[in-house]
Amino acid sequence: MKKETAVILLSGGLDSTTCLFWARKKGYRLVALSIRYGQRHDRELLAARAVAKKARAPLREVSLSLPWLSGSSLMNRRLKLPEMPLSRIGRGAIPSSYVPGRNTIFLALATSLADSVGARAIVIGANALDYSGYPDCRPSFLDAFSKAAKLGTKRGTEKKPLRVLAPLLRLDKKGIVRLAEKVGAPLSLTWSCYAGGSRPCGRCDSCRLREKGFREAGVEDPAL
Amino acid sequence: MKKETAVILLSGGLDSTTCLFWARKKGYRLVALSIRYGQRHDRELLAARAVAKKARAPLREVSLSLPWLSGSSLMNRRLKLPEMPLSRIGRGAIPSSYVPGRNTIFLALATSLADSVGARAIVIGANALDYSGYPDCRPSFLDAFSKAAKLGTKRGTEKKPLRVLAPLLRLDKKGIVRLAEKVGAPLSLTWSCYAGGSRPCGRCDSCRLREKGFREAGVEDPAL
Repeated sequence: MKKETAVILLSGGLDSTTCLFWARKKGYRLVALSIRYGQRHDRELLAARAVAKKARAPLREVSLSLPWLSGSSLMNRRLKLPEMPLSRIGRGAIPSSYVPGRNTIFLALATSLADSVGARAIVIGANALDYSGYPDCRPSFLDAFSKAAKLGTKRGTEKKPLRVLAPLLRLDKKGIVRLAEKVGAPLSLTWSCYAGGSRPCGRCDSCRLREKGFREAGVEDPAL
Repeated sequence: MKKETAVILLSGGLDSTTCLFWARKKGYRLVALSIRYGQRHDRELLAARAVAKKARAPLREVSLSLPWLSGSSLMNRRLKLPEMPLSRIGRGAIPSSYVPGRNTIFLALATSLADSVGARAIVIGANALDYSGYPDCRPSFLDAFSKAAKLGTKRGTEKKPLRVLAPLLRLDKKGIVRLAEKVGAPLSLTWSCYAGGSRPCGRCDSCRLREKGFREAGVEDPAL
């Protein structure tokens, strides 16, 4: 039987790397997609390349210049990254690191690529438990986008239409670390820190969620 | 009362220009968005600039390089543009000028811009009657995307959330020409031809749908 293709949104972090190896284990033919959108931690894209190479997945890279995003602390080095108490991350107001419409753009580009190569699935590492409280990580958003991707594509008119998969959606970070180990994801190659220095800062929300995940899973972080 | 903002996707053609002036008449504060995605008729973007200037709307321009789109005849000058009998346009198979995921990408970029500026609406010139048969012009697609844009944005969490408006959706080209006249859209500035020469080719689907619209509305095309 012919293998189905999946387009995997690959940032080079813990979550998307786990997704890539999850899709590989599921038997999909892999196409990875990385997006440079002016993120201060564009160092993550080097991790994405290393991860794609490890998986022997072809990697497509797209660059965007969207000047209106400069109000986000994830884009603008002059703004302070959020450092919330761990118990409050994702529970209060939308944090300053929110990039308006980011996942919508990522998924739209993946939809275009998926429709071009006739893929069956788009895989995104969104999760709604140990997450940063961004509206575009919510299950209801992903459901609505999945429907749009099905209706708005050529592939969507076929018998087995395009769909959006978010295999980490209901996992906490501990669960993600365990899944990563199960599918053989090379976590030593990954990069999660928002600050974009030469080593993870250990203070930003992303570093601390990652640290919590490894600690609770009882696993040492191989990237530190 | 403070004016609400609308982001209008502006290609510089008949439909999007009508949308821009429709939104102006509705009292929105305008922000126009044009996208260079490698279309062979990127000449349309000069029209978009002239139209935005005429409307005194600030124009944001975004450039994309998406090599996987080279299979579309709208992107690749070596491929022949479709020239369907007028009665069959939009009724058969998806034509070769279909650009996979184009409207999804356009709407995603508009969503990001709208969320950044706190806009109430995204306006797109899609229509589902005299159209080319692209899946991403279907009302069901636009409904699903509108829901995604509401759920995936900061603005969407507010009392008056973001919504996608397609004021031309149920109009035929004749109706669009009439609406354009009513809202004072400067049709002499617009560009519809897919071929991207120095003058409209008169043969491509887009030229012929446009000609039909003016003819049936009993209006002379001021761009010819």
